Amino acid sequence: LYVVGIGPGDLSHLSARAREVLTAAEAVAGYSTYIDLVKPLVGNKKIVSTGMRKEVARVKAAIGLARQGKRCALISSGDAGVYAMAGLVLEICARQKIPISPHRVRLPGNLAHSDLYVEMVPGIPALCAGGALLGAPLTHDFAAISLSDLLTPWEKIKARLAAAAAADFVIVLYNPKSKKRRDHLQQAQEIVLQHRGGDTPVGIVCRAMRKGQRVQLARLDQLHAAEVDMQTIVFIGNSDTLIYGECLITPRGYREKYDL
Amino acid sequence: LYVVGIGPGDLSHLSARAREVLTAAEAVAGYSTYIDLVKPLVGNKKIVSTGMRKEVARVKAAIGLARQGKRCALISSGDAGVYAMAGLVLEICARQKIPISPHRVRLPGNLAHSDLYVEMVPGIPALCAGGALLGAPLTHDFAAISLSDLLTPWEKIKARLAAAAAADFVIVLYNPKSKKRRDHLQQAQEIVLQHRGGDTPVGIVCRAMRKGQRVQLARLDQLHAAEVDMQTIVFIGNSDTLIYGECLITPRGYREKYDL
Repeated sequence: LYVVGIGPGDLSHLSARAREVLTAAEAVAGYSTYIDLVKPLVGNKKIVSTGMRKEVARVKAAIGLARQGKRCALISSGDAGVYAMAGLVLEICARQKIPISPHRVRLPGNLAHSDLYVEMVPGIPALCAGGALLGAPLTHDFAAISLSDLLTPWEKIKARLAAAAAADFVIVLYNPKSKKRRDHLQQAQEIVLQHRGGDTPVGIVCRAMRKGQRVQLARLDQLHAAEVDMQTIVFIGNSDTLIYGECLITPRGYREKYDL
Repeated sequence: LYVVGIGPGDLSHLSARAREVLTAAEAVAGYSTYIDLVKPLVGNKKIVSTGMRKEVARVKAAIGLARQGKRCALISSGDAGVYAMAGLVLEICARQKIPISPHRVRLPGNLAHSDLYVEMVPGIPALCAGGALLGAPLTHDFAAISLSDLLTPWEKIKARLAAAAAADFVIVLYNPKSKKRRDHLQQAQEIVLQHRGGDTPVGIVCRAMRKGQRVQLARLDQLHAAEVDMQTIVFIGNSDTLIYGECLITPRGYREKYDL
């Protein structure tokens, strides 16, 4: 089983290893939107595609195919390890006590009988694709926080927002809004505003490096009015982040320490 | 000027866009270790290579070449935006008031006179390469913290460690040790132990996906004894992270919510 991060979407940001694995795969599993992004590499392979929220069934199907001996690639956008499928694959294996051989421990030609070979193929995560479009927001310590309370209590998410804001992390918000959660982004804004100025630079990136890309710069006190959806990530600068030439820049540290 | 993240090191994890930019570049600037990693693509191009700690001079030289009209690629390992050169490039431009045109705003053929074209080419960051080797440590909220106090006060770093530990983030430590800072990792361990159990799973990844790769699993209370250097990153699990089949797994959230 190959768990593949396809990067932001445009094939030009796919790694050579991801391309190789997708080309050699006999079956490809993934959310249909992501399958479409790599369509040219999928060809006539068997496709296991289900909609959003059906990911447990999809991952189980992919594991099943791989255990039957099929070279199966399970794809995520971005990196498969960042808020994505890599965790669910291993959770299911652990829960069902499926013995696994991770790539770094044993190669596919050399497996113990009945072990499932699992290779995580890394990809460029949305926080790097979005960061590159914005300039350099992540040059210093940062915290990634998902605003989705589907599987995490909202109180815990709020505590993380407050902790990250108080300790002056750059903050990257995943899943800032959905139909059911209309005001989470505004609540997050209010929490961060308790620790950071209203003029803190903010970057909002939608569909980074794929069709429909949109990049906005704003101030923290304008964030509640920004247009966001589930394909958007939001970057909130730390106390040093500045804007120059339509770019967000988080300096590396004391500026006094070196002469620019 | 192209600011290129070359990923973990092995060329198989380079994106197609990074390969294209490096191939087309007339000059390549970077730390000599990283230039060596992409040697096959560099050929006989002009090389601007300086040692560690000379990065300001190197970036200024790269900006100078680009302003003379040369297609210049400045490389970082991992992603150029994560603790790397993208920030320094923009800091120098801002400080010297060099007008810039970022890629998303204007393409190279269409520049205002004298503007410096800057394209950030994203790469697979060390936290994704290391995460992929460990399994799936980053499936939930995480904080990246550098232990280098060269440009950041140690007190601020300690406050970030405490905040991230208290709010139950997975913690990724960059620059865990250098010759001058022998006990920072142990201090970090002590801070996190005030909020998390000694049996919290920890992953230590050195030279992920390049020559000399080493992956260790440990418990948080053993971390002080781990062998680390400046090419190592350390993953500290959150309160749910577990080990199965030699992999670190951070579950996505409540396990009760879905049936595995």
